[in-house]
Amino acid sequence: MPRRKVPKQTYAAAGVNLDSAARAKGLIFGHARSTLRPEVLTDLGFFGGLFEFKGFKHPVLVSSVDGVGTKLKVASALGKYNSVGIDLVNHCVNDIFTCGAEPLFFLDYIAMSKLLPERVEAIAEGIASACREVGCALIGGETAELPGVYSGNDSELVGFIIGVVEKGKVILGEEIKAGDIILGLPSSGLHTNGYSLVRRIFGETRESLDVYYPELERTLGEELLRTHRSYYRELKPHLEYVKGMAHITGGGLEGNVPRVLPPGLAARFDTGSWIIPPIFELIQRQGNIERAEMYRVFNMGIGMAVVSAPDDCNRLTKALPEAKVIGGVVKQEGKARIIIN
Amino acid sequence: MPRRKVPKQTYAAAGVNLDSAARAKGLIFGHARSTLRPEVLTDLGFFGGLFEFKGFKHPVLVSSVDGVGTKLKVASALGKYNSVGIDLVNHCVNDIFTCGAEPLFFLDYIAMSKLLPERVEAIAEGIASACREVGCALIGGETAELPGVYSGNDSELVGFIIGVVEKGKVILGEEIKAGDIILGLPSSGLHTNGYSLVRRIFGETRESLDVYYPELERTLGEELLRTHRSYYRELKPHLEYVKGMAHITGGGLEGNVPRVLPPGLAARFDTGSWIIPPIFELIQRQGNIERAEMYRVFNMGIGMAVVSAPDDCNRLTKALPEAKVIGGVVKQEGKARIIIN
Repeated sequence: MPRRKVPKQTYAAAGVNLDSAARAKGLIFGHARSTLRPEVLTDLGFFGGLFEFKGFKHPVLVSSVDGVGTKLKVASALGKYNSVGIDLVNHCVNDIFTCGAEPLFFLDYIAMSKLLPERVEAIAEGIASACREVGCALIGGETAELPGVYSGNDSELVGFIIGVVEKGKVILGEEIKAGDIILGLPSSGLHTNGYSLVRRIFGETRESLDVYYPELERTLGEELLRTHRSYYRELKPHLEYVKGMAHITGGGLEGNVPRVLPPGLAARFDTGSWIIPPIFELIQRQGNIERAEMYRVFNMGIGMAVVSAPDDCNRLTKALPEAKVIGGVVKQEGKARIIIN
Repeated sequence: MPRRKVPKQTYAAAGVNLDSAARAKGLIFGHARSTLRPEVLTDLGFFGGLFEFKGFKHPVLVSSVDGVGTKLKVASALGKYNSVGIDLVNHCVNDIFTCGAEPLFFLDYIAMSKLLPERVEAIAEGIASACREVGCALIGGETAELPGVYSGNDSELVGFIIGVVEKGKVILGEEIKAGDIILGLPSSGLHTNGYSLVRRIFGETRESLDVYYPELERTLGEELLRTHRSYYRELKPHLEYVKGMAHITGGGLEGNVPRVLPPGLAARFDTGSWIIPPIFELIQRQGNIERAEMYRVFNMGIGMAVVSAPDDCNRLTKALPEAKVIGGVVKQEGKARIIIN
């Protein structure tokens, strides 16, 4: 009896198409090239990105890694992928900017179960445009096709940034004292946090995202895809008046402001001092969510909290018309480091 | 009629448990602290990792991003996660080392649909141990709980590395000439490529992975989880004899060696010159895979290809007993840049 022949296997049949990967790479390179700076020594496609590092006296490299979480599921439901690329970069830029760093270069990681070069390109286009905006080189990346890892149409998107700040200009909040003022800069919606809770409340079908809400003056989907605001350009010229910055991401004011408070100090916020954007009221009402939980999950309208001495506060509010005094630094009494009134 | 009350929603009920996240973070920090170098200026938990950069004359920063692909599915089936952490770091270290760079610091991204702090810790333990091995600081990371994004028990693991090399010592293959020798350093199995094809052939159940293969002298699962070998420590002292290095990852010799070949040159390999490890023969036989496809997907036993001048070749083979002459550089004739005999 003849032995039964095993059917011929290939990588493509196993779900990894090296041709799609090459095509995606080519599309990304087109966008990435538009971001390159003279310090970038090699063309894209080498094993690593090479960046000549010069012009700094006592440089401190500042790095961060972030994803955009399940905001990608909203992007996927609406078939609109470039804005999450912008979100990713702006999130990373804000993170390293909290200590005063300027961005140098960026790397991305994009993965899905079945690689769709057009989707990869849309994401890369957003990444590259946000990189150009802050003079950051998109120096490398990885695109992975991982059959069976992601549910259905889902993808993963991760970004990695390197920036630099002179050692003498590092801002870590160490000079913050009781009596200092906390300014808030408005967020442009949810930024990249709390999407799993929102999806649970509103669903994630195209239908539910296409509902128009008069209080939002747009559809839910449009609101949820608003891009994560970058604070780099507007705040960078005024760092001499800044004692500390907290980027309000996952964990809200409560989870992020303590990162810049010296021990023994707490921050008190007066929620009447800024306008909570209507999306947060809509979410709270529809989800019957407790107020404290809202402040733990969402930014509630504040994307960046900036601490300054009382004397410098006016200069900042003059230079940044959207900035509002939202609270102050006090001596810590009891366990709480964040008091939300 | 009373209006029906919406059931109260919370982030935890929506699948994002901030307490698990905090616990995972604490566990990671324990391992990460063991990797820190004096240049690291802040404790973990700030918005970015701060690394004081000094001691270099004309530094070039070299960065790379990588994942471990669906090797994670094998780890998941066997419930063994620390080795993929090692894979991730070694993969990244090898990548930036191809141009001569030494690692400085590393950041990781770990995501799953339901965050399991113990799994995160096992991965982090592997990452930290591989970082210590090469003196690389694990300076930051992100752990994301993304309900509904990953299939079942799946996770994602991405690593970012930054290294440095003096500008005058950058190795990009520019000096490579026809007549140069190509040495191969053995891989320790599949490293991190080709797992989707292997899963398709053998399945990915615990049962199929627990089968003992006499030719492997171990079970399939043990073979597939062998860690990605790092070439940094053994090759680093001998870089003066090295004209170019190619880390053999996705795409095999064909996809990676051309990255270091100047235009007009090709590489010719004699596959009789090294021993193809039995795992590759097993895969080829069981999957009835064409030889050319095997070389496009797998490293086929060569983890790092090193190009040297004929005069320097002996020094390298003396210093590196496992290195074998596997081919040479020739003038390119026709389209092919890689000829595998």
